[in-house]
Amino acid sequence: MCQQTANFVPLDSLKVTPVNTAHTCACSSHGNASQPRPEVGRLIPEAHELDFPEVPFPSASVLSIAGEAGLRSVVFRHHELLRASEIGHLFASNDAVFAKVIGHVADYVIEACGGPQKFTELRGSGCMRTRHFPFTIDERGREVWLENLYRAIGETALPVEIREEYWNWMEPFSIRMINRRTTKAQPLRVSWTQAVERFVTAMPA
Amino acid sequence: MCQQTANFVPLDSLKVTPVNTAHTCACSSHGNASQPRPEVGRLIPEAHELDFPEVPFPSASVLSIAGEAGLRSVVFRHHELLRASEIGHLFASNDAVFAKVIGHVADYVIEACGGPQKFTELRGSGCMRTRHFPFTIDERGREVWLENLYRAIGETALPVEIREEYWNWMEPFSIRMINRRTTKAQPLRVSWTQAVERFVTAMPA
Repeated sequence: MCQQTANFVPLDSLKVTPVNTAHTCACSSHGNASQPRPEVGRLIPEAHELDFPEVPFPSASVLSIAGEAGLRSVVFRHHELLRASEIGHLFASNDAVFAKVIGHVADYVIEACGGPQKFTELRGSGCMRTRHFPFTIDERGREVWLENLYRAIGETALPVEIREEYWNWMEPFSIRMINRRTTKAQPLRVSWTQAVERFVTAMPA
Repeated sequence: MCQQTANFVPLDSLKVTPVNTAHTCACSSHGNASQPRPEVGRLIPEAHELDFPEVPFPSASVLSIAGEAGLRSVVFRHHELLRASEIGHLFASNDAVFAKVIGHVADYVIEACGGPQKFTELRGSGCMRTRHFPFTIDERGREVWLENLYRAIGETALPVEIREEYWNWMEPFSIRMINRRTTKAQPLRVSWTQAVERFVTAMPA
């Protein structure tokens, strides 16, 4: 358990990039509904929900600088923090099961960074959105995930020169795990600069 | 409770319009991911989730032909069926509370069809996607909702000449209530013709 929560600023307080509040329901009470046309009825135009921004996977330098052990360490610490967080119910309470599952997550991260294809060999398709469907993940759950990723990066001393690249993969990637919407607003975007400015936690230099 | 379930064909068995199976995760195991570029990493393009088709609200003829009582009747029967269905947990078990809530739903339907603005006066904004966020609604829940709408239309003898128009509003409208995704496939589309062909239930001529 991390005892350094006192200085941790909730993600809620971040300056955020403007969210897309474009209307995506089909009610009759909003401006983008056509005016009533009694003879044919109003027509609400097609739309879509949940924008997925581009996801830049890490270059080879992330793995070569962090090493497999370094990536495994940040993944494990991240999930230890998550298990103790408000979304802890999503993770195994049994330590051995937890370690095994998070080992698979680390395998995925290492493979996605260009390392050995251990995840694919052991677990098959790495489609993470599909794999997360059984678990209810809403916008707030993703924000907790991001907060704790930031903490894990610091606590495990991921080399400074690759932190932003690693974050820039995980931050948009995590949006694709959301499968429960609780608002029409698009998910919060948090650049590395915003994270550094706002997450006041013990971050080794 | 409706006792006519024996001949009722589950929506699952419908011939459906092709679903959009475009890739919307951000993993490294699918064809639309760029090839590995070790110096910069793979780039997964932006995408979005959950397509909302156009929603044609009813013309004035629906209300003028069905009447307020006719619309209120189909709404109430629909929700009686839903309360007894696999998504019954979403509805009040107390009869008085249930009747009050469904009365509001009927007010919304009547107002959306061009009738008195009772819903807006009593309840405020009619943004139905927002109003449904507290309730977990997945793709299967919507299909149950559609099945029972079809049954309610028949059981309450909504005039034949407005059934397709009413359905063509409700069918795409209901997609906008989905807030829990359990698959990457887009929601099932069910045209009125498909519904008539496949839902073998007691439907007055």
